[in-house]
Amino acid sequence: MARTQGSHSDITGPRIREAALGLFARHGYAAVSMRQIAKEVGVQAGALYNYTPDKQSLLFRLMRDHMQDLLAAYKALEDGGDPQDTLRRFVGFHIRFHLQRPDEVFIAYMELRNLTPDNFAEIEDLRRAYENSLEGILNNGQKVGLFSISDTKIATLAVIAMLNGVMTWYRAGGRLSLDEVEQIYWDMVRRAVTA
Amino acid sequence: MARTQGSHSDITGPRIREAALGLFARHGYAAVSMRQIAKEVGVQAGALYNYTPDKQSLLFRLMRDHMQDLLAAYKALEDGGDPQDTLRRFVGFHIRFHLQRPDEVFIAYMELRNLTPDNFAEIEDLRRAYENSLEGILNNGQKVGLFSISDTKIATLAVIAMLNGVMTWYRAGGRLSLDEVEQIYWDMVRRAVTA
Repeated sequence: MARTQGSHSDITGPRIREAALGLFARHGYAAVSMRQIAKEVGVQAGALYNYTPDKQSLLFRLMRDHMQDLLAAYKALEDGGDPQDTLRRFVGFHIRFHLQRPDEVFIAYMELRNLTPDNFAEIEDLRRAYENSLEGILNNGQKVGLFSISDTKIATLAVIAMLNGVMTWYRAGGRLSLDEVEQIYWDMVRRAVTA
Repeated sequence: MARTQGSHSDITGPRIREAALGLFARHGYAAVSMRQIAKEVGVQAGALYNYTPDKQSLLFRLMRDHMQDLLAAYKALEDGGDPQDTLRRFVGFHIRFHLQRPDEVFIAYMELRNLTPDNFAEIEDLRRAYENSLEGILNNGQKVGLFSISDTKIATLAVIAMLNGVMTWYRAGGRLSLDEVEQIYWDMVRRAVTA
């Protein structure tokens, strides 16, 4: 039984994260107390502090882990092939990854204002690292004459914003399958960056 | 002096709206009390209820007025000319209108979840009316063979999402002028909808 305490924490950690994520997404970070999170998990408020020093750290870890998961998943996909194929994979990856994480996406946008300056800077660095992956694809395509883009930095932000828009309207079982959605967006992205 | 009370309300109304808008944008609707709004305006909490029956009505009015202003401003701009010119005007209009109202834009996205079902439905109707303006332009261009779009409904949402992205990064006095930003986005939008 020596490891019971440790095992208990291993299980409680993810449950705390899940509860915090859901509550922050529904009510907003500022409106949620550590007490409410504890109640949702079914533990005493004090037990939360074994897992996290405070609510800010909880928010920061949710946002950081989301961005690190995104970067790791994208890195696993990269293969350095033809820029047009790589861009197409990026489009499909970005849509599918984010559709699976609506609460994380909502919080990543909405709660930036509630991060401390240091935490904000770290999340911004991760966001930029992801944007740089796409900008690298656009620059590579530009170099070999496949793409014709007047400003690859702005095109990067425009493509990501366009793809993020899918999260606001797509519902599984709706008019379009995910494959169709991916095809329609790829078609628009491809044309937007091609002369 | 008979109109003092009325004049006072005329002045207080906009100040309540401005205070509520700023506080909702900074802290989130759920975290802001009527008492805080009253304090920001410099009146007693009770005085707020001369202007608005409750916090929900205040939020709803902010969102409704924002959408009605948007629709009115766009209607004033429409002239039924060539679909490509009309689309170009839409792009410039959308970017400039929203850049002038960052708090309204943030709240319009973030606080939808805090509207009552009836209020949500009304805001959604206004949002769809605006989207329908753009979809109309795309359909007109499609009809006369200027545009080649596989799904004009999705293209509408994609263009609006792309343009909304400007709000997340544009700062006056930065690397690009607003005219340059408009040109870059127009270039991408035009290509995205053209064969």
